[in-house]
Amino acid sequence: MGDPAGIGPELCLRLLHEIGQNDHLDQIPLIFGDSNILKQVSDRIGVPIKTPVVSPAASLDRPAIVHCPTYNLSDVVPGQVNPQCGDASLRYCLQAITHAKQNMVDAIVTCPISKEALSLAGHSYPGHTELFSEYFSNSETCMMQYASDIACSFVTTHIGYAEVIHALTVQRIVAVLRLTHNALQTIRGLAPRLLVCGLNPHAGEHGLFGNSEEEHLIAPAVAQGVQEGIDVTGPVPADTAFTPLSRSRFDAMVCMYHDQGHIPVKMIAFDRAVNITLGLSVIRTSVDHGVAFDIAWEGIADPGSLRQAVKLATQLAKEKVLAP
Amino acid sequence: MGDPAGIGPELCLRLLHEIGQNDHLDQIPLIFGDSNILKQVSDRIGVPIKTPVVSPAASLDRPAIVHCPTYNLSDVVPGQVNPQCGDASLRYCLQAITHAKQNMVDAIVTCPISKEALSLAGHSYPGHTELFSEYFSNSETCMMQYASDIACSFVTTHIGYAEVIHALTVQRIVAVLRLTHNALQTIRGLAPRLLVCGLNPHAGEHGLFGNSEEEHLIAPAVAQGVQEGIDVTGPVPADTAFTPLSRSRFDAMVCMYHDQGHIPVKMIAFDRAVNITLGLSVIRTSVDHGVAFDIAWEGIADPGSLRQAVKLATQLAKEKVLAP
Repeated sequence: MGDPAGIGPELCLRLLHEIGQNDHLDQIPLIFGDSNILKQVSDRIGVPIKTPVVSPAASLDRPAIVHCPTYNLSDVVPGQVNPQCGDASLRYCLQAITHAKQNMVDAIVTCPISKEALSLAGHSYPGHTELFSEYFSNSETCMMQYASDIACSFVTTHIGYAEVIHALTVQRIVAVLRLTHNALQTIRGLAPRLLVCGLNPHAGEHGLFGNSEEEHLIAPAVAQGVQEGIDVTGPVPADTAFTPLSRSRFDAMVCMYHDQGHIPVKMIAFDRAVNITLGLSVIRTSVDHGVAFDIAWEGIADPGSLRQAVKLATQLAKEKVLAP
Repeated sequence: MGDPAGIGPELCLRLLHEIGQNDHLDQIPLIFGDSNILKQVSDRIGVPIKTPVVSPAASLDRPAIVHCPTYNLSDVVPGQVNPQCGDASLRYCLQAITHAKQNMVDAIVTCPISKEALSLAGHSYPGHTELFSEYFSNSETCMMQYASDIACSFVTTHIGYAEVIHALTVQRIVAVLRLTHNALQTIRGLAPRLLVCGLNPHAGEHGLFGNSEEEHLIAPAVAQGVQEGIDVTGPVPADTAFTPLSRSRFDAMVCMYHDQGHIPVKMIAFDRAVNITLGLSVIRTSVDHGVAFDIAWEGIADPGSLRQAVKLATQLAKEKVLAP
């Protein structure tokens, strides 16, 4: 359900309502969250709840709201950073993870959390990806942003600009190449063509800018990928990697840092892109936007990204091949 | 004319040919370059030269090719990095700069040079911007990429990824805000709305990622800009700064590093964007692409960006307000 004070509850209600209209379900939606909050939001935005509320111990063979009892949430104010909400959003995730570990759910789709609220509650995860990696003990994972017309995977994500340079290693880049190759192979059903971005302007222009990170780190990783049979090109200058021509030639771009890929994805597929964590023992997708505190509980949030995330998670769960 | 072995000569010939078709010129085009190279390219691509070749000492009151005698260029191979070409491309610029200093030209438009060829020839300029800044003794300049639907100015440009962090200062960011404000005011004729990008993912998310560069450097610069009457907002997360909605709300984005702005500009305006150096004593625009060695002298280069660069330089020269 994500942060109670964000747009997560509204998105869940809207999608549950949409799915409820379908006679033939190709998935069983379960909302892990606080049913009292959902009820409040339901009253406020006028989207009725027709799905039963059950306890986490219930059998989950039909659509349900799995009520995760949390600390007093009566003072939740829509749109406000609140450590109680941060703590609650973590608990919803942990409950879903527990169910996944017991094979009671096939895929987890996450709604936005507030990293600030999480941090105020004393939890130091920079994002869902790191949380899931830790709880599933998956050491090599990466984030991918996916839409039908653009896909980016990330060697680094939620770390400061200055830290990126220390996080790049040949080994890590090769791991992301493998994860990206396997994921795209699953999603698109054919061997993907990958393009790897450089780190420096003009991909360093043969050592003119930067410390030859392209020659020392990225090129050797690409060479290793090629040797393993991955169709991969690069490193290329990041500024021409996302032009319409380049996007028509490649299935995914491997990015060195957060904004290198997030800028183009948000430009092209703001409300459609889905976030996937590659390399996890569970299938996990996510909306590609934040808590949107400025419009929380107002009845105007667009469930487009959540719809895509559920759709992709369902597809991946059917193929069950993303898990290592 | 740019690097003789690149697409610069072809672009010059094509644009000269286009301009020659107009009865009423609103500018007098002068090509600073090697007339022998232009003749070779002309024969090869079938675009005739009808413009007279003159020496730099000639009076320049009509369209002309200003022949800049350089060292032996007989062994120029199209598409090959060549120190002779690097040296020659620098000499064309210096001749144009000399003319500009004597008020014999009103604006300079540069075709692409090869930084690698320049470097092999022993010249250490990372780009035209730095070259022009040095020769005009302008201490505070910045690059702007301009198209009708996107404009980005840069706090740093042709330096390595790791160096960016050391180049950011409140003073520099304020200077770029002023230069951007003044330039847009000139080009668009009204007070521009500026948006400033953060450096870290999510603009640091209140200090969660990075070393609070947003709080320590960017926010104080924005506050200073506001105090000076500049309509400026930020720092905001870079990944949402370039969405269609954001672009409709702001006239220019102020970027902290090269790829932060070059990625969106090349996605949206690959063949249309113009490069302007703000803060120079001379009006200077440039094409927004490289030497394109892979298609040099083949007759398929698109003069779109050069056409826009000449058009914008002409407009700015008429207003004569960009010069400090």
